Amino acid sequence: MRFLVFLFTTTLVAARAFAQGPSISPVSPGVDIEPYRDIVEQIIEAATSDSAAYNRLAYLGDVFGHRLSGSRALEDAIDWILEEMETDGLSNVRGQPVMVPRWVRGEESAELVSPRDENLTMLALGGSIGTPEEGITAEVLVVSSFEDLEARASEAAGKIVLFNVPFTNYGETVQYRLNGATAAARAGAVASLIRSVAPFGMQTPHTGTMSYADDVEPIPHAAITIEGAALLQRLADRGERPVVTLKMDAHFEDDVLSRNVIGEIRGSVHPEEVVVLGGHIDSWDVGTGMMDDGGGCVVAWEAVRILHDLGLQPRRTIRVVLWTNEENGLRGATVYRDSVMAAGQIENHVLAIESDGGVFAPVGFGFEGSDEAFAMLEPITELLDPVLSEGSRGRKGVTRGGGGADIGPLMREGVPGMGLNTDSDRYFWYHHSPSDTIEVLTPDGVQRCAAAMAIMAYVVADMPGRLPHTSVDGD
Amino acid sequence: MRFLVFLFTTTLVAARAFAQGPSISPVSPGVDIEPYRDIVEQIIEAATSDSAAYNRLAYLGDVFGHRLSGSRALEDAIDWILEEMETDGLSNVRGQPVMVPRWVRGEESAELVSPRDENLTMLALGGSIGTPEEGITAEVLVVSSFEDLEARASEAAGKIVLFNVPFTNYGETVQYRLNGATAAARAGAVASLIRSVAPFGMQTPHTGTMSYADDVEPIPHAAITIEGAALLQRLADRGERPVVTLKMDAHFEDDVLSRNVIGEIRGSVHPEEVVVLGGHIDSWDVGTGMMDDGGGCVVAWEAVRILHDLGLQPRRTIRVVLWTNEENGLRGATVYRDSVMAAGQIENHVLAIESDGGVFAPVGFGFEGSDEAFAMLEPITELLDPVLSEGSRGRKGVTRGGGGADIGPLMREGVPGMGLNTDSDRYFWYHHSPSDTIEVLTPDGVQRCAAAMAIMAYVVADMPGRLPHTSVDGD
Repeated sequence: MRFLVFLFTTTLVAARAFAQGPSISPVSPGVDIEPYRDIVEQIIEAATSDSAAYNRLAYLGDVFGHRLSGSRALEDAIDWILEEMETDGLSNVRGQPVMVPRWVRGEESAELVSPRDENLTMLALGGSIGTPEEGITAEVLVVSSFEDLEARASEAAGKIVLFNVPFTNYGETVQYRLNGATAAARAGAVASLIRSVAPFGMQTPHTGTMSYADDVEPIPHAAITIEGAALLQRLADRGERPVVTLKMDAHFEDDVLSRNVIGEIRGSVHPEEVVVLGGHIDSWDVGTGMMDDGGGCVVAWEAVRILHDLGLQPRRTIRVVLWTNEENGLRGATVYRDSVMAAGQIENHVLAIESDGGVFAPVGFGFEGSDEAFAMLEPITELLDPVLSEGSRGRKGVTRGGGGADIGPLMREGVPGMGLNTDSDRYFWYHHSPSDTIEVLTPDGVQRCAAAMAIMAYVVADMPGRLPHTSVDGD
Repeated sequence: MRFLVFLFTTTLVAARAFAQGPSISPVSPGVDIEPYRDIVEQIIEAATSDSAAYNRLAYLGDVFGHRLSGSRALEDAIDWILEEMETDGLSNVRGQPVMVPRWVRGEESAELVSPRDENLTMLALGGSIGTPEEGITAEVLVVSSFEDLEARASEAAGKIVLFNVPFTNYGETVQYRLNGATAAARAGAVASLIRSVAPFGMQTPHTGTMSYADDVEPIPHAAITIEGAALLQRLADRGERPVVTLKMDAHFEDDVLSRNVIGEIRGSVHPEEVVVLGGHIDSWDVGTGMMDDGGGCVVAWEAVRILHDLGLQPRRTIRVVLWTNEENGLRGATVYRDSVMAAGQIENHVLAIESDGGVFAPVGFGFEGSDEAFAMLEPITELLDPVLSEGSRGRKGVTRGGGGADIGPLMREGVPGMGLNTDSDRYFWYHHSPSDTIEVLTPDGVQRCAAAMAIMAYVVADMPGRLPHTSVDGD
């Protein structure tokens, strides 16, 4: 995910942006879960008696590999999913056209060339410009923060600035990935590096999106490993003036056509009302993007496939959407929201559920919406319980605070939003790195995530009362 | 270390090889530790009041990098250490000449070329031959064990055999690294791969030594990552017949001159009697070899430096030896043993202590020798206690079973041997990989290891009674 920061750090902002629902009537009672006990048992049995979701995910990664926006692999994967969804028997299977940016990494390297030669494992950050063909060779100025750079701005001209900032939390540390190049360019640097945004690594570089402020001349921006950054820090501390040669072919090409992948189970009573659930089908161009977010896509897709196979048709429509271009543009989410608005269907979007936190063992769902809606959903915790792990953050079941980047545009229009929470303590070990592969997940965790998604989607789509929208500022 | 297998799996063998000391007299009493309490306090204060050992280790890695036998970096590092030992004021500082093999990795790659293109992160195994310049392209036969290969031998001809064997323990799993090429060649394979010998990785390849039986035609032998091996396994399981192109420049060049690094504190009463302690100064050619075994070298060296700085002169001589070529030849250890034998000094070697298990937080020492000797040493646990961690294997203090590859030749001549034990649960995550860097260690752990080594060496070198030799079969 690009915007996990959203999940963990902007709950307060979101709470401010969405004024809570008017409390004219007393809080609604929770959904009556009794009618759903048998169905939930069937769902759990269907989801956990085999490894179908895990195997589908492994196949996606093995056959197509990573899926950066603009790549052939992404479109091939989308073609395959559309075919499979048809075979699964889902309704209204379609690809929704989305123009996406095409950023290409190309060849790249960072070499320590003084005081000794050493390859520094690196990844250009998504959206960065490249270097001249001969590279950029300059002394490295190591700083510990934006403030440290400001204090030493007079030393930065003509240098490569390294932000050697230890990981605290994603929302805080990712600022150096997002905005480090702008700050370094303002100080006169010729390129900028960051210590990878991760709490742990094994010479592991982490990429991710970045951008430039409009008023600076862009400079190349890349991530090196924790070990590489520590080496440059020690050399600088000893006064050894480390010199690095950075070579990057990174560049943008013309936007290309991609698609959001959509499939449905049509509602029996209110087919116009929609519970949407999904993840993002694009990934970074390293590893196979199984954690971020192939897994999120497959558990949403499999949730709907399982409901369909069980012959379950809820009152409202359940729609799976695998958004494209979450990582470096959010164009898929934007196009989807725009199409819903243009069709006058936003009020009919009852709930949006995203899974983009890694399909480790599920612990519950984080909800963003009115108190009334939350009260309706809370009893579902009991139905989910058989497939939930305890996790380590005490947020088991349906809890307050959550969302996702792709459902953000819908949520800002008042659609209640929800993110699948999992036991994701190692999420940032693998995030946007070559080690984001199927090996970080387990069949058991993936299958239980699929069960949790199916249970939540089905109950909310079928329960007699629909979830109220969130009041949006200005309504 | 090359032979950690020795530490964990050959205790029984060793116990058989060294008949225990004759039990004619009752077991000797333990050393009286009372006279050493003040001195040990001084040692601990000196070792833990700063980060001198850690800083020296970081400098070794930062300035010289990895130190494969035959490399310029190894000899440069040795030159620097010899100079520093002189500056430290140690006695008899010298480099003992040792001819070592020079195996050169060169350029190398493994590419999945069908059913899709994907780079497989890899490392040739030390001692392997290379491929023709155009590489070897062949279908991969994935097997789970030597037995599985035998059962499927008819399928192996002309293929690249992959031993996809999960890590159980080093002694067991390393057999595929050591002997996989021989088994695959016997079955008619054109090359062999192993899943890296490690319980966990983040696309991390692990190298290490290997060899060929005399009666087979050598084939190239390399390690791929856990993730890469799992990918090939899944493709094969689906009947997709994975094809890999393997390119390796690996080859041997002529042996070159290296050195064991030696320095001493001369004994005041029995200078001819020696307690020897050390590690191995060579490393594999990835990472910076800080865990394996730069750290072991530096804590032994710093132990002696600290004793010298404190003005402590024990009854017997304390000698630090940083052996060369442990990883792919054991030539340094062999030359040292031979020189001791030639000088008739083996009986005067009172104890040999090796640190080659990673200088994580120390938990104690594992001892191999007679019951009488063990009884003499056991009370030292109490002196070590302030610097020891609990660890996770319940072997705190001086315990039975231990040694090291470099002191093995001395031990086989009857010299009691001892290995520093540390809290090394993640040792094999980093072992022989690019992530064997200073970042896996902590200043606190390194400094406490130096303290533990100094305490053990000093007490054994100074205690009134000397340790008896181990009876060797055939004595």
